[in-house]
Amino acid sequence: MRVVMVGAGNVATNLCYALQKVGHEVTQVYSHHLSHAKDLAQEIGTEAYTDDFSTLCEADLVILCVKDDALGAVATRVAERYQTEETPPIVVHTAGSMCMDLIPMPRRGVIYPMQTFSKSYRVDFQHIPLFVEASDPSTASILKDFAHTLSDQVYELSSADRQYLHLAAVFCCNFANHCMDMGATVLEKHGIPFRVMLPLIDETTRKLHTLPPREAQTGPAARKDDNVMSRQIDILQRDGEELLATIYQLLSRNIQIFQSYDK
Amino acid sequence: MRVVMVGAGNVATNLCYALQKVGHEVTQVYSHHLSHAKDLAQEIGTEAYTDDFSTLCEADLVILCVKDDALGAVATRVAERYQTEETPPIVVHTAGSMCMDLIPMPRRGVIYPMQTFSKSYRVDFQHIPLFVEASDPSTASILKDFAHTLSDQVYELSSADRQYLHLAAVFCCNFANHCMDMGATVLEKHGIPFRVMLPLIDETTRKLHTLPPREAQTGPAARKDDNVMSRQIDILQRDGEELLATIYQLLSRNIQIFQSYDK
Repeated sequence: MRVVMVGAGNVATNLCYALQKVGHEVTQVYSHHLSHAKDLAQEIGTEAYTDDFSTLCEADLVILCVKDDALGAVATRVAERYQTEETPPIVVHTAGSMCMDLIPMPRRGVIYPMQTFSKSYRVDFQHIPLFVEASDPSTASILKDFAHTLSDQVYELSSADRQYLHLAAVFCCNFANHCMDMGATVLEKHGIPFRVMLPLIDETTRKLHTLPPREAQTGPAARKDDNVMSRQIDILQRDGEELLATIYQLLSRNIQIFQSYDK
Repeated sequence: MRVVMVGAGNVATNLCYALQKVGHEVTQVYSHHLSHAKDLAQEIGTEAYTDDFSTLCEADLVILCVKDDALGAVATRVAERYQTEETPPIVVHTAGSMCMDLIPMPRRGVIYPMQTFSKSYRVDFQHIPLFVEASDPSTASILKDFAHTLSDQVYELSSADRQYLHLAAVFCCNFANHCMDMGATVLEKHGIPFRVMLPLIDETTRKLHTLPPREAQTGPAARKDDNVMSRQIDILQRDGEELLATIYQLLSRNIQIFQSYDK
């Protein structure tokens, strides 16, 4: 397919690489920051554009990979460009929490790749779950076929359910990563390298392939070890980490509530 | 070495398997709950005992794998049994947050396996970091050699530093796992299977092998997306998950504080 990428951030960058890899043609890259568009366009050998959407070419698919709070405005301006076209492209966004109907196009959709992306780290799209929604059955069929060229895990999901999925992803990925960051902060303060933590972190994740997280829960809160908990809170307070101490208490309390449901 | 295991919980069970695998002899298994001792002793083909430490045999090493709040009392009673012996065994504990000197023996130490253990899931000890502390250089040398029979990652670490390490492990493992559990709760409530989250969870961990967690941080809080954050907090409150909503706000706030340090 001939694809236009609107956006040049983490998701757009990883997606462009994946598109090219499986043989789609990325004909244009747009970004609010022309330098970002240029960087990405150069890497994949295409043309860079900034906010002037009158330059949008014909395409089969326009992918909006922009910040959630810019999405509505960008979608409206992209739609304006195509309003006189006889066969306008399908326009999709990739956002977990945004409604499909933000896009005022006759054929519209969502392809939400549920993964964490960094520009500096390429991910393999093949095993990334792609959650697809479309304005109508024929567009759904095209988008699902397209999604299957990128990944072997394609699901259809409504905007409402995608919201819950995205919320869960914030807990499972963003908040979990932040817990690692808080751990790294404690280690750094005391001169212990973060890498000693990696086998434990790997195992924490690996366990979840065979045990639900409730059952996999270990640690002082799960075993109601009040002595260790109060000593660890003391360490954080002594280190001047008041907010970490508060988070420690709140998460420990919630672990105990969850463990009590289990019995 | 001839090893006595005091304890039959998650750590003791995994450790007994690892000891046997590399050719040490586990001669006795003790547990406050005789049935637990029997289960473990039967699995590894040895004898089960409960709280009467007068039955402790001669050994090279006694490993105390009991709950932190029982450790002091158990260590004292084990020491009483050996006080008339000419060459008493080395006695170690395996606790992250407990001081070595809780063990009133001339030759004492700590072997802290930094990993998350479940009885129902065997881990491979070979790559588990073992943090060793000892009462004296000769005991340190014996314990490090012993630890090296189990793992290729052996470090010497003082009781003070081990406390920080354990605190970091609570964040990186226990709290991270609880974040997964909170995510699972959201999914379950809306009929979405947890397994769709596994590729994202795996990638979240895998990234940390090449990026520090601060740099790997993504999500609505990191990109200051207030709309998504307030919508997600609304969802939690609508679902009656007040405590999760509070945790969401607190973690998001701390992510933003950490990201601001970075710049």
